[in-house]
Amino acid sequence: MQSFIPTKRTLMGPGPSDVHDRILEAMARPTLGHLDPEFQRMMEELKGGLRALFKTENAMTFPVSAPGSAGMEMCFVNLIEPGDKVVVVKNGVFGERMRENVVRAGGEAVMVEFDWGTAPDVSKVAEVLAANSDTKILAFVHAETSTGVRADAAALCALAREHDCLTIVDAVTSLGGLPVEVDAWGIDAIYSGSQKCLSCTPGLSPVSFSERALARVRARKVPVQSWFLDLSLVMAYWDGTGGRSYHHTAPVNPLYGLHESLVMLFEEGLEESHARHAVMHEGLVAGLEDMGLDFLVHPDIRLPMLNAVKVPDGIDEAAVRAHLLQEYDLEIGAGLGPLAGKVWRIGLMGTSAREENVELCLTALADALGKQQMHVDGLKALEAARKAMSDD
Amino acid sequence: MQSFIPTKRTLMGPGPSDVHDRILEAMARPTLGHLDPEFQRMMEELKGGLRALFKTENAMTFPVSAPGSAGMEMCFVNLIEPGDKVVVVKNGVFGERMRENVVRAGGEAVMVEFDWGTAPDVSKVAEVLAANSDTKILAFVHAETSTGVRADAAALCALAREHDCLTIVDAVTSLGGLPVEVDAWGIDAIYSGSQKCLSCTPGLSPVSFSERALARVRARKVPVQSWFLDLSLVMAYWDGTGGRSYHHTAPVNPLYGLHESLVMLFEEGLEESHARHAVMHEGLVAGLEDMGLDFLVHPDIRLPMLNAVKVPDGIDEAAVRAHLLQEYDLEIGAGLGPLAGKVWRIGLMGTSAREENVELCLTALADALGKQQMHVDGLKALEAARKAMSDD
Repeated sequence: MQSFIPTKRTLMGPGPSDVHDRILEAMARPTLGHLDPEFQRMMEELKGGLRALFKTENAMTFPVSAPGSAGMEMCFVNLIEPGDKVVVVKNGVFGERMRENVVRAGGEAVMVEFDWGTAPDVSKVAEVLAANSDTKILAFVHAETSTGVRADAAALCALAREHDCLTIVDAVTSLGGLPVEVDAWGIDAIYSGSQKCLSCTPGLSPVSFSERALARVRARKVPVQSWFLDLSLVMAYWDGTGGRSYHHTAPVNPLYGLHESLVMLFEEGLEESHARHAVMHEGLVAGLEDMGLDFLVHPDIRLPMLNAVKVPDGIDEAAVRAHLLQEYDLEIGAGLGPLAGKVWRIGLMGTSAREENVELCLTALADALGKQQMHVDGLKALEAARKAMSDD
Repeated sequence: MQSFIPTKRTLMGPGPSDVHDRILEAMARPTLGHLDPEFQRMMEELKGGLRALFKTENAMTFPVSAPGSAGMEMCFVNLIEPGDKVVVVKNGVFGERMRENVVRAGGEAVMVEFDWGTAPDVSKVAEVLAANSDTKILAFVHAETSTGVRADAAALCALAREHDCLTIVDAVTSLGGLPVEVDAWGIDAIYSGSQKCLSCTPGLSPVSFSERALARVRARKVPVQSWFLDLSLVMAYWDGTGGRSYHHTAPVNPLYGLHESLVMLFEEGLEESHARHAVMHEGLVAGLEDMGLDFLVHPDIRLPMLNAVKVPDGIDEAAVRAHLLQEYDLEIGAGLGPLAGKVWRIGLMGTSAREENVELCLTALADALGKQQMHVDGLKALEAARKAMSDD
């Protein structure tokens, strides 16, 4: 075995996104003990920063010591008791993963399905909730990473309240790049990831739980099936008020990285970060459309940070991605499930949402498609992108 | 929020241990996508390195994307089905945590308990197994971090085989610092952590599963309760043979760190690392005994990397730890459970198991105890430690 020296890539897939050097440097700072008073001060700052990011006063706001999939599971296993009915909105991969979580936690999943690439129809969800008056939880994905679709989170949360349901919201791809209003929308449990619009390395999952959610947890009759993800145990460590009791050893250095990513986000400003994602998205759209490429998703419900672009007829999508990686050290994503082979997924997340990345992507795609006999004018695409980005 | 700049400490508690600069530098290398061919080559090397470390041919040997507690849970939730009887050996905190895992997975835990600070009595475990012929699994901790006791893993595994049981072994603290022989001893499921004798930062959990364990998983009637920790799903990503299917986004940069820690371990040699832990332990023992301090654990069953030292009468143990941290930037650990206030836990793990650390610890303790009116001769202790370390 030799030391591993990775190539420097530009990451414009569905995640991870580019990690800023400041965050990488923070990860390399000296490791502290997880019970060190200095580390605990950092933990408190991190909790405060995540509250500001989630727009919430929720005391139980902290990063789970594992990737977004574990944050998802923490939300489901703590809020569901055996037999609980959960309405799950599905319009892509991550709605299906929610169903898996419900079933494995002993719940009953009532699925409301929509075509991949379309947004959840709120009135249809309302019908299902009305027909299932014993529903305990409504679960949905705010930003579907598999398709690039944004759900109307505010409307879905309001609906859940009307039906006296808790909400579990997947904000893995949206947080930091789109407004996420936990308190204003009335979200009860939300999870995200460190590695998309927060631009930290993968491996941590910020979560937040409302007082209503905690009341449900406290009233549980059956213990949480996971010891590692048991909210009451984890919070005995993250809650600084009663002295910290040891639960597990926190991932110290990755938490330094997440802390630094929040410092950078607030230096820029949260609204400014959202605006930057929107502008870069407009530039990418203008350029790709000028190249003759089409988007999977209608503009009204399109995510700025995840762009599902249709693969033109006759083009070998995997060969294009391989060309980008080999010739430009540029990573874009493939389609998943029914979209495999049919779309590319181009991410504009966090540090990746910048002009150089948009230009590199358009240049590289024009080259790759030109090589595959699709006549595209890269310069014209770049000009359209620059115009769209500078108009804002 | 400001960037967080931690103080450089010397970590001689129960973990995390000192992280070598080479490992921190590796963590700060450019992030690759988790499906990048370069990253996947690194994953294959990492699996091979972990096999060499665990002394196993097990194909299913990989790091779980979460701390040791999650690695523990992965072993239990995949191997236990509801109603399964599991004999759990308990002589400290982590045996109790195993019981929690068994119960939450729907199993029946039959506890075999021993005093904290003593080793499991193999003949007593044999009696319990004989009296519970329907036992499916024997679970025990190889190196109890809460007490500093080593269990006779080879004998306990042999016993499990005689009774046709699988074994689940906690090697969080032993791996890298003591021989761990997965194939020779016949261990079926084993978990460790990245942050003790491997000296990587906390957050990853190397695991390995035998073919017998996998047969049990394949024969399950009830799905694994955790989606995140479902072995069959996780391995579809870590197994390179059938194309990698996306499960979760791997913690890319921490995995660079673990890779580098294995590179360093094999540069030194595994046996050499074990020997170094033993020698540094002897030095620490000689020095502490010369200061008049006693050990909790009998020498025959003492761990080299975790030293439980009795707090002398009349000494404020927390004040001593605070003095070490404030004046020497040196962290040692407190006692847990029934040992709280009664012992210090001094770690000699990985990079921390070196002469400078032994000397610093003796110097700092002599100072702290001297301040608390216990007359200790630090120079004499250092001389004894140096003699013990150079004799080998």
